[in-house]
Amino acid sequence: MSEAAASAPERTYSFLGPRGTFTEAALAQVPEAVGQAWRTVNNVGEALGDVIAGRSDAAMIAIENSVDGGVSVAQDALATLPDLRIVGEYLVHVNFVLVARPGTTLDEVTVVNGHPVAYAQCRKWLDAAVPDHAHIPASSNVAAAADLFDEPLRPGHAAIAPPGIVEHYDLDVLARDIGDNKNAVTRFVLVSRPGVLPAPTGADKTSLIAELPVDRAGALLELLEQFSTRGVNMSLLESRPVGDELGRYRFVIDADGHILDERVADALLGVRRFSPEVRFLGSYPRADRVPNDYDDRYSDAVFIEARDWLRALITGEPYDTPER
Amino acid sequence: MSEAAASAPERTYSFLGPRGTFTEAALAQVPEAVGQAWRTVNNVGEALGDVIAGRSDAAMIAIENSVDGGVSVAQDALATLPDLRIVGEYLVHVNFVLVARPGTTLDEVTVVNGHPVAYAQCRKWLDAAVPDHAHIPASSNVAAAADLFDEPLRPGHAAIAPPGIVEHYDLDVLARDIGDNKNAVTRFVLVSRPGVLPAPTGADKTSLIAELPVDRAGALLELLEQFSTRGVNMSLLESRPVGDELGRYRFVIDADGHILDERVADALLGVRRFSPEVRFLGSYPRADRVPNDYDDRYSDAVFIEARDWLRALITGEPYDTPER
Amino acid sequence: MSEAAASAPERTYSFLGPRGTFTEAALAQVPEAVGQAWRTVNNVGEALGDVIAGRSDAAMIAIENSVDGGVSVAQDALATLPDLRIVGEYLVHVNFVLVARPGTTLDEVTVVNGHPVAYAQCRKWLDAAVPDHAHIPASSNVAAAADLFDEPLRPGHAAIAPPGIVEHYDLDVLARDIGDNKNAVTRFVLVSRPGVLPAPTGADKTSLIAELPVDRAGALLELLEQFSTRGVNMSLLESRPVGDELGRYRFVIDADGHILDERVADALLGVRRFSPEVRFLGSYPRADRVPNDYDDRYSDAVFIEARDWLRALITGEPYDTPER
Amino acid sequence: MSEAAASAPERTYSFLGPRGTFTEAALAQVPEAVGQAWRTVNNVGEALGDVIAGRSDAAMIAIENSVDGGVSVAQDALATLPDLRIVGEYLVHVNFVLVARPGTTLDEVTVVNGHPVAYAQCRKWLDAAVPDHAHIPASSNVAAAADLFDEPLRPGHAAIAPPGIVEHYDLDVLARDIGDNKNAVTRFVLVSRPGVLPAPTGADKTSLIAELPVDRAGALLELLEQFSTRGVNMSLLESRPVGDELGRYRFVIDADGHILDERVADALLGVRRFSPEVRFLGSYPRADRVPNDYDDRYSDAVFIEARDWLRALITGEPYDTPER
Repeated sequence: MSEAAASAPERTYSFLGPRGTFTEAALAQVPEAVGQAWRTVNNVGEALGDVIAGRSDAAMIAIENSVDGGVSVAQDALATLPDLRIVGEYLVHVNFVLVARPGTTLDEVTVVNGHPVAYAQCRKWLDAAVPDHAHIPASSNVAAAADLFDEPLRPGHAAIAPPGIVEHYDLDVLARDIGDNKNAVTRFVLVSRPGVLPAPTGADKTSLIAELPVDRAGALLELLEQFSTRGVNMSLLESRPVGDELGRYRFVIDADGHILDERVADALLGVRRFSPEVRFLGSYPRADRVPNDYDDRYSDAVFIEARDWLRALITGEPYDTPER
Repeated sequence: MSEAAASAPERTYSFLGPRGTFTEAALAQVPEAVGQAWRTVNNVGEALGDVIAGRSDAAMIAIENSVDGGVSVAQDALATLPDLRIVGEYLVHVNFVLVARPGTTLDEVTVVNGHPVAYAQCRKWLDAAVPDHAHIPASSNVAAAADLFDEPLRPGHAAIAPPGIVEHYDLDVLARDIGDNKNAVTRFVLVSRPGVLPAPTGADKTSLIAELPVDRAGALLELLEQFSTRGVNMSLLESRPVGDELGRYRFVIDADGHILDERVADALLGVRRFSPEVRFLGSYPRADRVPNDYDDRYSDAVFIEARDWLRALITGEPYDTPER
Repeated sequence: MSEAAASAPERTYSFLGPRGTFTEAALAQVPEAVGQAWRTVNNVGEALGDVIAGRSDAAMIAIENSVDGGVSVAQDALATLPDLRIVGEYLVHVNFVLVARPGTTLDEVTVVNGHPVAYAQCRKWLDAAVPDHAHIPASSNVAAAADLFDEPLRPGHAAIAPPGIVEHYDLDVLARDIGDNKNAVTRFVLVSRPGVLPAPTGADKTSLIAELPVDRAGALLELLEQFSTRGVNMSLLESRPVGDELGRYRFVIDADGHILDERVADALLGVRRFSPEVRFLGSYPRADRVPNDYDDRYSDAVFIEARDWLRALITGEPYDTPER
Repeated sequence: MSEAAASAPERTYSFLGPRGTFTEAALAQVPEAVGQAWRTVNNVGEALGDVIAGRSDAAMIAIENSVDGGVSVAQDALATLPDLRIVGEYLVHVNFVLVARPGTTLDEVTVVNGHPVAYAQCRKWLDAAVPDHAHIPASSNVAAAADLFDEPLRPGHAAIAPPGIVEHYDLDVLARDIGDNKNAVTRFVLVSRPGVLPAPTGADKTSLIAELPVDRAGALLELLEQFSTRGVNMSLLESRPVGDELGRYRFVIDADGHILDERVADALLGVRRFSPEVRFLGSYPRADRVPNDYDDRYSDAVFIEARDWLRALITGEPYDTPER
């Protein structure tokens, strides 16, 4: 039937499930994903595996939290899996509720289920409000709550969960906004196979991962100079072990701007020449839509004029310096 | 009785327990800790809390793993807790065994307990050897094994654990050396209250944590130059979120050399002048005992001569440049 | 007699004579030199030789011209003669007149005496006003005029000279302000033996000459970084050949600030450690009296606080970071 | 007649005359100049004027002396005259003889003619051998000798001259090799109109003159980094006043390598983007024929590979990293 055919999803998106996670909230921000197939997975590896294998068109993964820092497993996956591209960035305000099966009260709570990261972020509140609790680690924020149903009602068991959990489970909210940092934000990226580059918007990020040459003092400094000497600001620099031996690192970098911006392209050339192993992860619109800030001297026109000038010097053709 | 008095422990050391952890193996490398009181704790926070409160003289904590990178919780604790000092560094080769309660065989295994970090490090082996297993996260490597005894024997339950586990629990080893990276190493540090600096040995490290000035392009570059311009090599640079908002970082740095080395002291002065918030974490002997390598032009004598020269210029006293 | 004793000169100043030179005009700007003995010399070498030998207390020498650049012979003398100190800086606006013995008119002129530097600075005017003249080089601006009296009146002979020349010689001015650049300025320095440093005024310069280490790529960059990393601006950088072989240079540097400014002292320490041969030429008030501009982060207080902090780390004494 | 036609000069070369100068010795090193028309001029301005006006095909000019440094007038002319190109570099060992008209002996000498630069270079020898001489400045090294013939024989007059002088004038050599520095060398360049670039030889120099942006601290550092970050060594850096006011400089730079070397071309692009006014003076074979030394990481292949990689990232075409 034509109606059904019209509404059949054309694209599939993988995300860390089950329903109700912060990752789902990030995916809900993607206009193109509305009405498409959403596929829940258990971890970052599965999500990216879906993309690589073609089971999904894109995967939403958490990449950094304002309190806990970079998500190592996601960074390492992007560094080692076959060629992938980040095509979008999304921010989700992170706050937690303490939930329990109906009938439980806060003063009865003795055991708290929680993903270790979430637990760490609520620790101060818990130590004050539930002084003598025990912690049972869970594999995800939603699993912490779901585990409450694993067995017959266990009085005194509660879970740390995202606020959206009550839309999916029959739970009572014992307390809201229990995170120690009220401004906690998680940054997510939408990852796809290489294909058409997202168009430059003037408010873009470029992500890459680069290894340093071995045994060269000041190598990191030299890597950073590839950006600074082209007026390209870096918003993220994280080191991750290469893994083969202690003391060998690769660096995860987010730079302001798009690969189609001349200054960014030139910086990437510099990184490529310098680094024994560099991986371009994509250029994509920034979540905050703040226009990239850069000095006029690094504008596209300046790069283009310099190339024209050099070409004329080499060919011997006449050249008039344009008005600046 | 004098004998008893002689053997009464004078010092207490906190470490992540229970007995059998890699942390215990690190503590066993400390000659001064032999025969002293060893106190098990549940996490890094407790370990450092013991030191701050005076319950322990020192705490052994994991700070970096060659596969997983920096231990964020330890780095963040050192950045935010009251003044502490690293006084020693120790390396432990990390390898895992798969254990189960006696009578279980490998082909029966369907559930694997494991600390998330250990589980990640054994994932390839597990996927090959135990294809359809479920994972239950544990709070420590030893707890993974200890949890096997929580309830009546559950057939098919196994745990990832350190090799030393069999000295403490009645368990069968189903497989040895199941880590995906055979060279995995964890780096531990011994942390104490500020007091007497460990003496320079010529093979030292200096650790610090520094924030960058806000809104200054190239600030990280400038931080790194404080070291490079004094010929001081950095063996570690990790960024950690300050936590108040996305995009604000502090940097964890290990530099070669001792605060009593002139070039290191001068670099620290530079960092102090530059950084709005810098924390000295200590100068201590390197675990690998490899002598610090530096160019002669950054030797103590060069720094001292320059000061003598400058003083003579200012006072007007005669000055003869020494032979170089 | 007491009156005579009171007015007897206490100090002697050497300068490039004879009376009427720009150098004399520079010396006239020195309050302390008024009423003292002024000693004319034939060149920079004699002037500095007087100081070294004790025949003079100070010598005024030209060091840079806004059109012709650094005065090489003065720079080389300061680089190679025994220890001397610049104690003051003076600017003289340079303009020239064309003079001849009385009775000569401009259209009769066929030969122009002139110091080569002055001649070069008046070349355009001369080529237009006296198209077919011949040039006879003179050893100084005043000598050019004085030479007109060497022999019986030679019709058609004129000289380029400073405006003050008519106070000393019976000459007609054929044209005024004949220099091609109306803003030409010559910078002079007053040079003395090492002794008491001029006090800091907040508007000071520090001069030095440094050689680069041989065979080290990027050595000049490293020299400049000694200043930039301490927020010290350089107003002059000139290279001069060491003289022993082509391609070996020393660098003449003027830096903003006084050796008693912490940031300047620290930069000098850095230069001393870096350079195989560095010579401090003095800290002295700037001729233009423009206060030194520097970022607050390089203020004396910041340097002093950092030292206090470091000292406390080493001694183990308690330390409270002051309010910033 | 065909023979005459065959030998008619096709090209004209201007040089500082008269015959016998060091400049002539430099021109004699140019194979292409043999048998061509040589045109003597009085100074650098005339020499370059001949080229610009088309009267000459090229001009040989002195650009640097190992004792006296850069030849300011030549540097300033190249910075301000219409577009010119250096097409070759030549070295001449500089040594001087003391000459006089036949019959004069050394102990009779009381007056010494000499170009000021030559006089300065022979000063120590003269002060020792002719203690009480007077100096008469001459406009060139050869003119110093030629002036001896201006008037009837003047006993006691001698001149400093190049050794070749005796081939052109009837003079007695009173002393040889009287220069204070026995290794003094003058560097000459052959200057032509823009046209075909000299082909790269692997032992090349590239010369340019660049102004710094005003009011930007660290601008010189940034200029130098354009070279250092591409592994391009600089053999010369000289500052010259722009001339409009004290404290504004342009920089004369000789860089190792040819504009057709990728690393040099990229450095020139960087300089062009950075500098408000940059002038390319040419790429040409080094006089010493020493092959340019650079790290493999800055080879042409590395630059080309990086561009191929970037292009593939942008177009989305597949790309295989070549073996390194």
